[in-house]
Amino acid sequence: MILVNGAATDQVVVTDRGLAYGDGVFRTFLVTDGRAHNWRFQFRRLAHDCAALALPCPVEAVLAEEVIRVSAAQRECTVKVIVTRGTGERGFAPPQNPVPTRVVMASPRLPYPEEFARGGVCVQVCRTRVAAQPRLAGVKHLNRLENVIARSEWSDPAVAEGLMLDTEGNVVGGTMTNLFMVDENSLVTPELSKCGVAGVTRERILAAATRHGVTCRVEPLTLDRVLGARELILVNSVIGAWAVRDIEGRTLRPGPGMTRVQAWLEEKDD
Amino acid sequence: MILVNGAATDQVVVTDRGLAYGDGVFRTFLVTDGRAHNWRFQFRRLAHDCAALALPCPVEAVLAEEVIRVSAAQRECTVKVIVTRGTGERGFAPPQNPVPTRVVMASPRLPYPEEFARGGVCVQVCRTRVAAQPRLAGVKHLNRLENVIARSEWSDPAVAEGLMLDTEGNVVGGTMTNLFMVDENSLVTPELSKCGVAGVTRERILAAATRHGVTCRVEPLTLDRVLGARELILVNSVIGAWAVRDIEGRTLRPGPGMTRVQAWLEEKDD
Repeated sequence: MILVNGAATDQVVVTDRGLAYGDGVFRTFLVTDGRAHNWRFQFRRLAHDCAALALPCPVEAVLAEEVIRVSAAQRECTVKVIVTRGTGERGFAPPQNPVPTRVVMASPRLPYPEEFARGGVCVQVCRTRVAAQPRLAGVKHLNRLENVIARSEWSDPAVAEGLMLDTEGNVVGGTMTNLFMVDENSLVTPELSKCGVAGVTRERILAAATRHGVTCRVEPLTLDRVLGARELILVNSVIGAWAVRDIEGRTLRPGPGMTRVQAWLEEKDD
Repeated sequence: MILVNGAATDQVVVTDRGLAYGDGVFRTFLVTDGRAHNWRFQFRRLAHDCAALALPCPVEAVLAEEVIRVSAAQRECTVKVIVTRGTGERGFAPPQNPVPTRVVMASPRLPYPEEFARGGVCVQVCRTRVAAQPRLAGVKHLNRLENVIARSEWSDPAVAEGLMLDTEGNVVGGTMTNLFMVDENSLVTPELSKCGVAGVTRERILAAATRHGVTCRVEPLTLDRVLGARELILVNSVIGAWAVRDIEGRTLRPGPGMTRVQAWLEEKDD
């Protein structure tokens, strides 16, 4: 089911700035038995990203109700929320009083092979780099051509994800995931002040590490360091966590870092 | 009037990848008395940009007919063509056999003040930088948040355009225009191999310069050089050419460079 501004329809006007310019933000998360996973984190991040684009954020209660409404027919589904700056005068100038477009849609949970979560995944390094744009860094906005192009670099279904580097050669994350590296007894995740998406699962892991007294550093991560890691973990709100099993010909094993992260993601932190 | 895949409607499905990821390209141009200005240039560039994204380009005759159809009710109008990768499986991976979405829409020509074309325009320098992404440089794709944010830096209607710099401090162009600088008897326009949009009017001016034996260099242009120019000219397919009259407190006068460029744009080069 799809709701656009609360109405059941799968259509949006072609003059919407979301289509014209990618002028909007989105989120994707799981809903199970009428409960949106980590809703408070998702909404807080949506509000943050709207603010980054000076976009009015939908009212939380309205959005929460719509999320539940689109999911009602399914025990478990993926819900995507899109908020755009709506329509307006032509041209790049944002309307002074934008009336945002709010899209809420449910679809069946993507059928990733079960062994991805159980046994780890095969990952490659993409040629497509992520451009440095500090003004938009961290924001899950609708300008995602870099991810599309990076994702089109492989079609082998055995490759679950591709790592993307920034223009300086540091690892930003996967095309659709954030990355954690296990380094001795601590975790490291790429610093995202110049580019990348700061996802909710990354944020939850950072919070859990603090809560449990585990060091989790946020810093630039060269590809060499990543390729030399003992454990690599890819995360997002739909897949949870995948351990990297194979990357550029190197073989890794899910280890205690992965066990710890998975346990943290089961905690009720919302 | 608006056509989506040839049908009169102003709606597109919310699952279109143009909305989800900005996965598409566009063009904007004038149509007068049923004639699309510089159609061959526009179509060639559309085909080029589709190829850059591995997107099937619409058939020229089909698109040309739709452009004329949407314009039929108006003597003069602006037509915008959008081509997206259509819908497909969820996720960034492009569908193997995409069925593109083709949007053709006409709207009244934007009412820019007449003195902009006659007496020149006031321009400011934007704080928002254009990120370096060689893979997408030159392409008029739907990821235009940088332009939106740069354009939101001013609301004074007396300011007609904002110049954008890349991360190295070189001038890329305006938020919606390409830039030419008059340097002695020659012209210079920013090199766009790392970012920016290589517009049709820029291309026509480069071709006209060659035809007329006038040197037009394509090279990186620092802001200092731009601010020290005798003449600055902003161009696009809708406005034609605007001379810069005022930039960062400096006053310029439209001169022989502008006269020459305007004459070239009147030539039938299609």
